[in-house]
Amino acid sequence: MMSSATIIAIPGIPDVRPGMALPDLLVRALHAAEIRPSVGDILVVAQKVVSKAEGSVVDLAEVTPRAEAHRLAGETGKDPRLVEVILRESTQVVRVHAEVLITEHRLGFICANAGVDHSNVGLGPDVVCLLPRDPDASARAISAALGAAFETPVAVIINDSHGRPHREGAVGTCIGAAGLEPLVSLVGRPDRYGYTLRTSVEAVADELAAAATLLQGQCDEGTPAVLIRGVPVKEGPGGAAQLLRDPARDLFR
Amino acid sequence: MMSSATIIAIPGIPDVRPGMALPDLLVRALHAAEIRPSVGDILVVAQKVVSKAEGSVVDLAEVTPRAEAHRLAGETGKDPRLVEVILRESTQVVRVHAEVLITEHRLGFICANAGVDHSNVGLGPDVVCLLPRDPDASARAISAALGAAFETPVAVIINDSHGRPHREGAVGTCIGAAGLEPLVSLVGRPDRYGYTLRTSVEAVADELAAAATLLQGQCDEGTPAVLIRGVPVKEGPGGAAQLLRDPARDLFR
Repeated sequence: MMSSATIIAIPGIPDVRPGMALPDLLVRALHAAEIRPSVGDILVVAQKVVSKAEGSVVDLAEVTPRAEAHRLAGETGKDPRLVEVILRESTQVVRVHAEVLITEHRLGFICANAGVDHSNVGLGPDVVCLLPRDPDASARAISAALGAAFETPVAVIINDSHGRPHREGAVGTCIGAAGLEPLVSLVGRPDRYGYTLRTSVEAVADELAAAATLLQGQCDEGTPAVLIRGVPVKEGPGGAAQLLRDPARDLFR
Repeated sequence: MMSSATIIAIPGIPDVRPGMALPDLLVRALHAAEIRPSVGDILVVAQKVVSKAEGSVVDLAEVTPRAEAHRLAGETGKDPRLVEVILRESTQVVRVHAEVLITEHRLGFICANAGVDHSNVGLGPDVVCLLPRDPDASARAISAALGAAFETPVAVIINDSHGRPHREGAVGTCIGAAGLEPLVSLVGRPDRYGYTLRTSVEAVADELAAAATLLQGQCDEGTPAVLIRGVPVKEGPGGAAQLLRDPARDLFR
């Protein structure tokens, strides 16, 4: 038996602006492209368009940096107003080095600049984009709209590009999830030779987020939403926080 | 324009045993399945079958643990002979905690148990599998065999499941690469609004490795090789070491 999966870039998604109803816009783009989601499909949506639609953007012209922001800006060469926004989004500064500021985001992600980003915003020279306020809720809203429009449950992942401690380059990472289990445990199941797996837990939602990034692109021809079809996933409520490691269990530090 | 990518699990790959010529075996499986690789396709092969074919396996019955192996075995509850094999594969022990032993593998990967694994080996109760001696060379050999058989250059990635410091669950990760650039830099290119990207480097090879894992599975019905078609990659010599971060630049620790 041959099995395969398909990653489909959804065409025709317009430039997303604050206030647009992204779930409806995605439904319309799927209709227009004659792509009908079916059971087991996963729609992966780039964080940037979710944040923009929800208005999770800040005009740096309206930001007054605190003293710590000025200090960190001096260390990193960043705009103090940008650092102020990063600090507002963070629970702690993890590392400051040269031009890099790694923090723990209020949602628990450890990433550069708390996910605050200048690229692909297009709302003015000083407007930066934050992560969505509640990416799981954003995923649930999109999943509900797709479910209503296509009369089928569709899992949704919100993804973003994150760097990794030990490896170069960023990879697509799940920051919000609805309708599927982000982690799949194989513990206790037999391998193909009958050996019982003892430690295998697969971060399927991160693998889907990474797979989607391969077609999303970051430059001019952005395709922020991608449908993945044919990957066996487990239905579930979602919740990207399951993918976060309790700092006490971070064995790599 | 609609763009899409396909991930095809190659059927009919037999149980791989030490000494088998894996490149030929993959060519035969592709022929039998009537899958003809074309330019831009990437074949992703699970580390386990590469290691087994190359004889990168060790029978613990033949291993005599050093004193440090006995000590670490006591701390982790692991078999001292397994710990001895892990130490032989490692340049340093990064962390010991409860049942977990994180080391730096001689190839530079920081991972649990130096990639030494009991599962899906099937060569006897005490036989464990190591990472391939030189996964880039393994990838090049497979790429050369595919190139000769199908008269087209085919990129090859060897992948393995690795845990991550800050996140739960393992994801497919590139440990060997031939025929493509593992990292794609977007630095200096304009985003869709003309903003010049300053920090975007994408670990495409890791994203391909993760995408492939979605179909490889770890249990009874293993499909160790997966062809990915339709993802824009840059031709290049490969080399998974490019994906390793210089420890001095590890900003997350």
